[in-house]
Amino acid sequence: MANRLSAVPQSKFCRDAQLLFLRSALTVENPFNSTQQVLGWLQERNRQVKVSVDRIPFSRMSSWAFDAERRRLAHSSGSFFSIDGINVQTNAGPVQDWDQPIINQPEIGYLGVITKVFNGTLYFLLQAKIEPGNVNNVQLSPTLQATKSNYTRIHKGKSPNYLDYFTDRRRCEILLDQLQSDQGARFLKKRNRNIIIKADADIEILDDFCWLTLGQIKELMGIDNVVNMDTRTVISGISYGNHLDETVRFYNLVNRSSDTVGTRLLASELNAEVALHTTDEIIHWFTHLKTRYDLLVRPLPLKSVRDWIIEDDCIRHKDEKFFRVIGVHVEIANREVTGWDQPIIEPMNEGICAFIAKEIKGVIHFLVQAKVESGNFDILEMAPTVQCITSSYDNTTSRRTLPYLSEVLTLATDGKSVIYDTLQSEEGGRFYREQNRNVIIMADDDFPEETPENYIWMTLNQLKIFNKFNNYLNIQARSLIAGISFT
Amino acid sequence: MANRLSAVPQSKFCRDAQLLFLRSALTVENPFNSTQQVLGWLQERNRQVKVSVDRIPFSRMSSWAFDAERRRLAHSSGSFFSIDGINVQTNAGPVQDWDQPIINQPEIGYLGVITKVFNGTLYFLLQAKIEPGNVNNVQLSPTLQATKSNYTRIHKGKSPNYLDYFTDRRRCEILLDQLQSDQGARFLKKRNRNIIIKADADIEILDDFCWLTLGQIKELMGIDNVVNMDTRTVISGISYGNHLDETVRFYNLVNRSSDTVGTRLLASELNAEVALHTTDEIIHWFTHLKTRYDLLVRPLPLKSVRDWIIEDDCIRHKDEKFFRVIGVHVEIANREVTGWDQPIIEPMNEGICAFIAKEIKGVIHFLVQAKVESGNFDILEMAPTVQCITSSYDNTTSRRTLPYLSEVLTLATDGKSVIYDTLQSEEGGRFYREQNRNVIIMADDDFPEETPENYIWMTLNQLKIFNKFNNYLNIQARSLIAGISFT
Repeated sequence: MANRLSAVPQSKFCRDAQLLFLRSALTVENPFNSTQQVLGWLQERNRQVKVSVDRIPFSRMSSWAFDAERRRLAHSSGSFFSIDGINVQTNAGPVQDWDQPIINQPEIGYLGVITKVFNGTLYFLLQAKIEPGNVNNVQLSPTLQATKSNYTRIHKGKSPNYLDYFTDRRRCEILLDQLQSDQGARFLKKRNRNIIIKADADIEILDDFCWLTLGQIKELMGIDNVVNMDTRTVISGISYGNHLDETVRFYNLVNRSSDTVGTRLLASELNAEVALHTTDEIIHWFTHLKTRYDLLVRPLPLKSVRDWIIEDDCIRHKDEKFFRVIGVHVEIANREVTGWDQPIIEPMNEGICAFIAKEIKGVIHFLVQAKVESGNFDILEMAPTVQCITSSYDNTTSRRTLPYLSEVLTLATDGKSVIYDTLQSEEGGRFYREQNRNVIIMADDDFPEETPENYIWMTLNQLKIFNKFNNYLNIQARSLIAGISFT
Repeated sequence: MANRLSAVPQSKFCRDAQLLFLRSALTVENPFNSTQQVLGWLQERNRQVKVSVDRIPFSRMSSWAFDAERRRLAHSSGSFFSIDGINVQTNAGPVQDWDQPIINQPEIGYLGVITKVFNGTLYFLLQAKIEPGNVNNVQLSPTLQATKSNYTRIHKGKSPNYLDYFTDRRRCEILLDQLQSDQGARFLKKRNRNIIIKADADIEILDDFCWLTLGQIKELMGIDNVVNMDTRTVISGISYGNHLDETVRFYNLVNRSSDTVGTRLLASELNAEVALHTTDEIIHWFTHLKTRYDLLVRPLPLKSVRDWIIEDDCIRHKDEKFFRVIGVHVEIANREVTGWDQPIIEPMNEGICAFIAKEIKGVIHFLVQAKVESGNFDILEMAPTVQCITSSYDNTTSRRTLPYLSEVLTLATDGKSVIYDTLQSEEGGRFYREQNRNVIIMADDDFPEETPENYIWMTLNQLKIFNKFNNYLNIQARSLIAGISFT
């Protein structure tokens, strides 16, 4: 084995990654295409493309079917994903025993972005990509979205664009390479490899691709449903190091005033010295809660899932809550016509994901929730302060009992407190027109520092430290921090 | 829920933990009991106690039995643990599909140590504890070893000694609190909460307990089978911060020469600036391998486990390899007589766990292996350079193909290179007289820096960073780094 493995070329890690990321995050000017031009280009792409997504009964889906015992809904090849059933038992939250359908996709997927330095600035190669579930058809996706089967070429189909840059490990330097979780309430322990690489040689730019700075991507995240979830999760893993000195240098460099929300957020990102709690203390908090909460998930045949009804046109909860699994026939007509059938998840409600932030000891802290979700890889993940569906708004019990919901809804109507507020889509390959409101609120000094036991204040620097390691921040928290702009 | 949770008192984290640990690690003088006195006391305890462990057939075990379908061997209460079967499929290593029995103990156990400061030095309260599988009966254990059922008092039996110090969260400060894995080849995703707390009030010292400095514990780890695995894993999680300046100050304080192996190891522990690879680069390495390797573990009824034979007196591999599950009747006579029956794992071989270390860029680095084991929580953990059973020694194929085995066996006979070499026991509550040779070898400058793909060089500081987060270092690696002494 030693000999076999040592023959594999080792990839190189870029030592300047943090500085390249920082400079790119502070840059919104782009000689290739201004942010306005990118928006125009996306609109043009949207006009050119013809997407039809038609609901069809499961029995009419090509290549997809329930197995004979109705254990799961799966593709005839055994690939892609399947809709399975699970029973969940936990001592967290008001409901402690339930069944549900869940997406089972055990392979680790790849979400990869190629970057390249032009004139000292790092640019990200994003794709204007159509997914059947997208609210507005075309969104900005990573350079590469591939399943492990694509990646390792088990299936001998056409290989995805730019795949070689990721598989030939001598070709690029690595800037970031992390495993990150998917939606815990919808996916069973699904994870993706989030990877950013840097090319040195010239790259052919295909029709649907464009170069953007990190500052531009963050600018575009300020607009509803432009940057897709896959791009947001890759971006969320970027950290900029610990060196506060460099902030000052960089801010002088780009000639900014030093008292904007952006500067204060960047200070929270770069300052490793000041925080309400130490890293070890946060680990203690999380260890305590992982010990306190149980999460027992057992596979169930779909037909046995309590409270859910399987019909030919959907799998739905008996009270029409949570989500439905539907079948769709998709046709995308652009230069070539492509069509396929697939199951997809349709949410019954929009949701809200909100961080409350507050300056503590002069540094912005985020109020983080330890949240149990059924598909979590390890019981708990770090979630936004509030993460719930909007039907809870009108429910006075939820408003009273769900911590911070009432505060978020009150502060979110106050323009002064809101520093980020957009609608963001879930991944359009699995979720049908699902969008959630992403909000970050800056609370006043008199907002209480004391929290219920499963909440804790963390700086952006600390969130980024935990985010580096496996399965700490959930995808909703990552979507929010990806949107934080320093400009 | 908010109200219920906010009523729970929050524990306090000690801000001086790292300095207290460092000072204690550098202290081997103890006015309560010198290390020699502790050894004498352990011998005395060993003389006083009468332990009989008799092998009995499974059919004669009280409270333990196979279920009707021979799916598992379990306790009649459903508590403690069970011996289950699993099928393992992986693309790592030469054997890619096998069945095996495994210990299933899904609850998170507690391994807790109480500490207290006397005259500025932190002392650890350890227990001279008998376990049925211990090679020499009495070993130094943590203050508390408890299952979650003990801890939460679901079972209404006598509560373990000193439990209240851990459950009453206002009583002590927290110094360390981490989830750590158990043996991946023997336990199915088992984890323990490793916790160190600091008491301020006076503590009654029970008969079998004594106060030791961290330096003394490390001294005792230099002797075969004195410090049990539970103590070693708790100790392994201790880090001392990043401040190299303080080393100098402390070394002046304790008046040491500055060019011993101990000083150089402490420099590797405290130096966060110099390393062959950055943390992000190590995360990339691990992400790449987690994506490359599959580990699919499915539960199997014991009776269906291929290549294993279930007889009334043991469960054994058809070629007498790996381990046997046997039944024992245990009687421990001390002040009171206690007796019980239980299954226990008897290894067929001793093993060797060895780190190769080498000075790179002036700082000692350890050669870490990414290792797939069947019960791993997340595919891979970071393991010693070599971790294998001793029967591989005489096997020329293993010697040739298992990376670094040949180098370790050669260097381990060279007294000059060996900086640590002891026999250490596995946990005596589950493993019957299992001991493994723990070796750390300092390689010369001409030892190759290049490694096969699933090996990487890390400083002690980096090992400690990964060890803080869940399921990075495996228990064999932790046992080795726990034994590293700076004195």
